Amino acid sequence: MIPKVAMIGGGSWATAIVKMLSDNTTAKEIYWWMRNVEAITHLQKYKHNPNYLSSVEIRIPEAHISSDIVAIIEQAEYVLLNVPAAFLKETLKDVSPAMLKGKKIISAIKGIVPDENLIIGEFLNQKYEVPLEDIVVISGPCHAEEVALEKLSYLTIASLDLDLAGTFANLLSTRYIKTNVSDDIFGTEYAAVLKNIYAVASGICHGVGYGDNFQAVLISNAIREIKRFVDAVHPISRDIKESAYLGDLLVTAYSQFSRNRTFGNMVGKGYTVKSAQLEMNMVAEGYYAVKCMHHINKKYKVDMPISRAVYAILYEQHSPHIEMRLLTEQLN
Amino acid sequence: MIPKVAMIGGGSWATAIVKMLSDNTTAKEIYWWMRNVEAITHLQKYKHNPNYLSSVEIRIPEAHISSDIVAIIEQAEYVLLNVPAAFLKETLKDVSPAMLKGKKIISAIKGIVPDENLIIGEFLNQKYEVPLEDIVVISGPCHAEEVALEKLSYLTIASLDLDLAGTFANLLSTRYIKTNVSDDIFGTEYAAVLKNIYAVASGICHGVGYGDNFQAVLISNAIREIKRFVDAVHPISRDIKESAYLGDLLVTAYSQFSRNRTFGNMVGKGYTVKSAQLEMNMVAEGYYAVKCMHHINKKYKVDMPISRAVYAILYEQHSPHIEMRLLTEQLN
Repeated sequence: MIPKVAMIGGGSWATAIVKMLSDNTTAKEIYWWMRNVEAITHLQKYKHNPNYLSSVEIRIPEAHISSDIVAIIEQAEYVLLNVPAAFLKETLKDVSPAMLKGKKIISAIKGIVPDENLIIGEFLNQKYEVPLEDIVVISGPCHAEEVALEKLSYLTIASLDLDLAGTFANLLSTRYIKTNVSDDIFGTEYAAVLKNIYAVASGICHGVGYGDNFQAVLISNAIREIKRFVDAVHPISRDIKESAYLGDLLVTAYSQFSRNRTFGNMVGKGYTVKSAQLEMNMVAEGYYAVKCMHHINKKYKVDMPISRAVYAILYEQHSPHIEMRLLTEQLN
Repeated sequence: MIPKVAMIGGGSWATAIVKMLSDNTTAKEIYWWMRNVEAITHLQKYKHNPNYLSSVEIRIPEAHISSDIVAIIEQAEYVLLNVPAAFLKETLKDVSPAMLKGKKIISAIKGIVPDENLIIGEFLNQKYEVPLEDIVVISGPCHAEEVALEKLSYLTIASLDLDLAGTFANLLSTRYIKTNVSDDIFGTEYAAVLKNIYAVASGICHGVGYGDNFQAVLISNAIREIKRFVDAVHPISRDIKESAYLGDLLVTAYSQFSRNRTFGNMVGKGYTVKSAQLEMNMVAEGYYAVKCMHHINKKYKVDMPISRAVYAILYEQHSPHIEMRLLTEQLN
């Protein structure tokens, strides 16, 4: 029996992972769901995703690409979720818990389900009855654009079932993708969400006029803030300096191309949140993440001064200058 | 009695610290030694260092600036060393242990004394009989150029005597300089030395063709390598994620302007070590540091794959492509 993997989502990260799965030499069948019917037609005809990483050649049979999510999921034993967290509920609206039964569910989503304030693993477990040990989380540090260029990247594959993590890691490894396995599904998910908030914070600081010296202080405080939070939520032994946590933070916060950083920079320079979003024509994930985290942290009450400052700027109309000035007093 | 501080060294970091001392509002007398007599004449006449951070106005009495190191040191109770580590022995050749007796010696040097293979604190203690508790170490993350621009920066002031650290921190704090104190003089010194090696490594990887995804993995491994080493050399309780360690690594390794990174980049692109040095017309500190660390680590035998790869490339003529390829197998 060769493994069957269904990719749910048509963005750049989904395209990058389809490329990895295709380049990996283990025999497998790949199925691909995306919402956009025009993109599917283009993909079937030209073998390239017209909208994301369009240089990447896609070698999947035409019949395996579809906008019928139920049909795609039915085929697969591994279902890989890769839509924005904000659209997950809508994407899965025709999918019942029974349809996911017995399947391994892999999340490459970095976000929190809005309204529910749950990370993806919790959401799947609580709303779709997926046993926690059937859940896998894929984490970076990994810009999809560098996967398209086949630049060496390391992924962390997390699951409570380390055998499952290893099995799925073996489906992703290629000449340019190395994989680590981990049992920390909650920590890697939260760290991946939080890093977007700190990328927004980096952008705001840059926009307000702080330099590289302060950026280094900000990020060294951010990783401590991440550690405090994930240790409170899920207290297991973990080294926060590993690539899935610190590396993922670095690749995002130090990227000039990060949407989150660009969004923060515009806010720091004086754009309103609304006008920055309109100007960018897309939404920075950190914008949603900080609101969800604000609610989740009401329960845990972890000291998170950077996250709190970003929340105050984005949702309470606090001045970026004043809020960041106050923040500098709380860092070291 | 108002405190008297002597700065030994005329480079950009020395100029930045003189600016901090001058802008700090505690009354003090500042003395300044530098080797270059023309620079002294220019400084006395125009109140600007002609060679480094020349936009910074220097407000020190003419008579306090001299190329006579014995006369300058005699005046001061705080002697602040800020010459390249490679020139420290030569700089202090006319200074006897007796002349330093009773004084507090502050090192802003990031390096290891060649031939001796000692960090500055150890060198002062062993060769100049300075008691360890009279030694203070100044650590970043701090580019001197951003101090000239009065961009907010955080310094860590380390001494076994925390009161002394606090006292000296109070002489440096300004509107744009915040200070932390620490008792970890060995850890902060070694971390400051090691970061230059990892900045060279970053440059080599960039030159060879690795991207941002790998850079994040490299740096998250580098901070673990730093922790392993400083914990072996000086096993005290420390949080390596603090600004003096992780922040200092980040500001150097992610700086496009770092000499170490530029040097590494040229080597990665295929320049020989010699031609890269000639082309740059200056020497990257990481070049010396990796040789010293190679010798020091013969004693401790800490697993330092990144540092070892840089040594092999710079001193054993190993191919950057092959050495970095081998290194990728050892990171995670």
